[in-house]
Amino acid sequence: MDMLWNGWGDPAKAAPLPETVTGLLRDLLGVKPQTTPALALEDVRPPATTAESAALKALADAVGGDEHVRTDPESRVRHTRGKSTPDLLRMRAGDLADVPQAVVLPAGHDEVLAVLRACAAHGLAVVPFGGGTSVVGGLAPQRSAFVALDLRRMNGLLDLDPVSRTATLQPGLRAPEAEALLAEQGFTLGHFPQSFEWATIGGFAAARSSGQASAGYGRFDEMVLGLTVATPEGTLETGRAPRSAAGPDLRQLVLGSEGAFGVITSVTVRIRPLPEVRVYEGWRFGSFEEGAAALRRLAQDGPRPTVLRLSDETETLIGLAQPDAIGADLAQGGAGCLAIAGYEGTPEDTAHRRERAAAVLTACGGTLVGAEPGERWAHGRYSAPYLRDALLDVGAFAETLETAAFWSRVPDLYTAVRTALTDTLTEAGTPPLVMCHISHVYENGASLYFTVVSAQGEDPVAHWTPAKHAANEAVLAAGGTISHHHGVGTDHRDWYVREAGPLGISALRAVKRRLDPEGLLNPGVLLPTD
Amino acid sequence: MDMLWNGWGDPAKAAPLPETVTGLLRDLLGVKPQTTPALALEDVRPPATTAESAALKALADAVGGDEHVRTDPESRVRHTRGKSTPDLLRMRAGDLADVPQAVVLPAGHDEVLAVLRACAAHGLAVVPFGGGTSVVGGLAPQRSAFVALDLRRMNGLLDLDPVSRTATLQPGLRAPEAEALLAEQGFTLGHFPQSFEWATIGGFAAARSSGQASAGYGRFDEMVLGLTVATPEGTLETGRAPRSAAGPDLRQLVLGSEGAFGVITSVTVRIRPLPEVRVYEGWRFGSFEEGAAALRRLAQDGPRPTVLRLSDETETLIGLAQPDAIGADLAQGGAGCLAIAGYEGTPEDTAHRRERAAAVLTACGGTLVGAEPGERWAHGRYSAPYLRDALLDVGAFAETLETAAFWSRVPDLYTAVRTALTDTLTEAGTPPLVMCHISHVYENGASLYFTVVSAQGEDPVAHWTPAKHAANEAVLAAGGTISHHHGVGTDHRDWYVREAGPLGISALRAVKRRLDPEGLLNPGVLLPTD
Repeated sequence: MDMLWNGWGDPAKAAPLPETVTGLLRDLLGVKPQTTPALALEDVRPPATTAESAALKALADAVGGDEHVRTDPESRVRHTRGKSTPDLLRMRAGDLADVPQAVVLPAGHDEVLAVLRACAAHGLAVVPFGGGTSVVGGLAPQRSAFVALDLRRMNGLLDLDPVSRTATLQPGLRAPEAEALLAEQGFTLGHFPQSFEWATIGGFAAARSSGQASAGYGRFDEMVLGLTVATPEGTLETGRAPRSAAGPDLRQLVLGSEGAFGVITSVTVRIRPLPEVRVYEGWRFGSFEEGAAALRRLAQDGPRPTVLRLSDETETLIGLAQPDAIGADLAQGGAGCLAIAGYEGTPEDTAHRRERAAAVLTACGGTLVGAEPGERWAHGRYSAPYLRDALLDVGAFAETLETAAFWSRVPDLYTAVRTALTDTLTEAGTPPLVMCHISHVYENGASLYFTVVSAQGEDPVAHWTPAKHAANEAVLAAGGTISHHHGVGTDHRDWYVREAGPLGISALRAVKRRLDPEGLLNPGVLLPTD
Repeated sequence: MDMLWNGWGDPAKAAPLPETVTGLLRDLLGVKPQTTPALALEDVRPPATTAESAALKALADAVGGDEHVRTDPESRVRHTRGKSTPDLLRMRAGDLADVPQAVVLPAGHDEVLAVLRACAAHGLAVVPFGGGTSVVGGLAPQRSAFVALDLRRMNGLLDLDPVSRTATLQPGLRAPEAEALLAEQGFTLGHFPQSFEWATIGGFAAARSSGQASAGYGRFDEMVLGLTVATPEGTLETGRAPRSAAGPDLRQLVLGSEGAFGVITSVTVRIRPLPEVRVYEGWRFGSFEEGAAALRRLAQDGPRPTVLRLSDETETLIGLAQPDAIGADLAQGGAGCLAIAGYEGTPEDTAHRRERAAAVLTACGGTLVGAEPGERWAHGRYSAPYLRDALLDVGAFAETLETAAFWSRVPDLYTAVRTALTDTLTEAGTPPLVMCHISHVYENGASLYFTVVSAQGEDPVAHWTPAKHAANEAVLAAGGTISHHHGVGTDHRDWYVREAGPLGISALRAVKRRLDPEGLLNPGVLLPTD
């Protein structure tokens, strides 16, 4: 099944907003009903491909036949851009400025190498395409002549070593498919980002994804033990041991490279036994500060829940932690800050961690509100992007952004980003609702994930851009990183360049020039073009 | 106090071998008494420095005065090579082929930058020098005109953030000094490698060190949150958040770079509260295989002790896990395999982990042998290098080497390295005693640390070299990494190049050329010279 071309996910899962929410949007934010509906797929037609027939022939030879090189309008439209709100707004308006000239579907590592050779020979850039879920412009290169390299045919489990607890997966495997293959043998990867239903193993690695159970299972970059990468200059293989002192860690040079250094063609990951028990509970804290201190205590001194997240006052009030039941608490006024603590594992381990964590959360001022909010969170954990479509449908604007910092900087970072978003959008005439949660905790810091909802401006993308830029500036000024788990893409690139510093960027460009001397791979994504 | 110039550590801690051991060496290994004693420091005189006076003047200007640029024989001899057994044998024989032309002592980051500029201007290579404890030839560059950049004046605690639990340390701080500074504020780094008494923070980062309590505190590279690096092309700063999706992790490009990319001038690390309780216990297993399975079980399913190690049958028999009491068990014949499990933390956490770990170890066939072996291990945990000096003194050869692999490869790797060492040295007429332990465990694999003792050949370094090369070949053939925690240096370089592969090496050389275009930094260490 294909994802909705100008929205999120499975069209069958779309759901209209409850009246409590539309009322709030209208009364609080001044959202006006949408008068221009989104275009239909059949009405959106890109110009004919500019790829020459010799190039298409070479690509077909590389991937074993014409049927794996697609130039039909629908295939090209479906591989245009990712899933940021500006991406969706552009697609809804029929803007196809970033359309690929062809979609190429290789079946394995050697075919990827062959595609790279064919593209080099014919001057085509290459955008690796997994689930197409980038929300940072990672699929919009700064070159008009490019092909989308769709990795969906590379979706196998290549190896599973139950003794070492490792599995080698192909990059085009979607997360649910990967979990199903591992579950057959009693294992899980434990990586459950909000994009879970659609995103792929290769994309997780390329963008340093982090899942909702990162407190227990770690980030995706912490799960990766080895990588195979196809580059225009040949193959890079990394990872002979879980840890090594043999030089810099080349895995960490590939992770986060967002397709700019090469195409990830296999990923060896750490796997864990399928949990026997999964329990998610809600806790309530008097304030975001109090709740954050409790999360910090657990992250630093343990025991570590598998899932640990905390919504701020606004997000709690709106009920965004439970997207399927959003607005349900509005009438009664959700007070304070809702936290979710989840435990997965064996019955004994789960019970023990839960008991000790509960004692810590209580000591830190938390009140257990029981299993219902936890179960509601778990049920709606992949629903928020569907909610965004419904918001766009009624004429609202909704977008998310995220960052991370050391614990001592978290309070100022929170205030700075909230203020930047609120001030910019208010001055522009669309006062927003800004909500935030902490969903990834570490011994030394935490992530902050912001959701912004407002009325759409006249030109919604142009209206949002200054607010996004103000948020980026606030992140850097307050000592945060420009992205905790969404990545850099093109949207964060200019701020990333400042974060990494000129010498760091210059070292990465030296790597890129060595692996991709003609600059074919995702030009302008992650690193500026020359 | 200075370390022994041609041996290990504090001369006052030297201790002769017990008669049980010398008897064993004589009877079992055919060790003959040493007839040529090591040269005295005052008898070892390097040729006069070749550094021109203009160069020395520029260096003095860079570091604030003549007194911080040393060309006297003793300073230069004390900065010649590291502490591998071949290094010590060469020093004992008065071989000064690797002597630096001067020793330069900068006081801070800007002075390091100034030294790099001065060296570039005068064609001098630079070898960053921390504790001088490299055992892989990391201080022996392939250039005769080089200065040792001794970082001992950069030994401060720059910042401690108790909320984020981070500390920023200067690179020349020795581990005991760092622990003392952190302990004043109630914290520990938890990094206790065998080189603890002498090695420095910068060295730990540059070489990806791993300490004896890695099961609980992690490897040094896992503790590092940020780095500042002085390069000939300027300053590189990394680490704005504990984790980030903003591109490749530049920290992991610096960690393990062994001074070849730049000079690490500050390291921000994760710190933890000082443990209230420390308990170390001995366990006995029937075989190395059985013990390894028990360690794997704890590493994969927990609870994780803070210290976890297992000696094989030979190491257990000799008693090497307790260097201060080596040979003590020989009369009664230490049977099976000794494991040490240690727990550090709060009383509650320690008691709980100990109880559950004991249940796992028992279920896996282990027998608790009580606190005494644990305490003896803890007491002698930094003693093994002193023991090596005593062995060299009586005419024996003793060296260590280490590797790591995924769990399923560990048994074959163990056999392959043992066999390579035993066969090569036996064929050369000096049948060795080969001992091994696992001292670092991960969910997905473990390290193997080998100790080899034999009679010295006629030319001890030349005699050992084929055995070391055979071990390196065995490591690669059996799927291990060429180093788990000693690093690459010059000794492992040719095998490292094979492990990383041509494209990986070429990417790293691209980074080096960008940061160190004239190839001043540790030429030939880590990466081959052009």
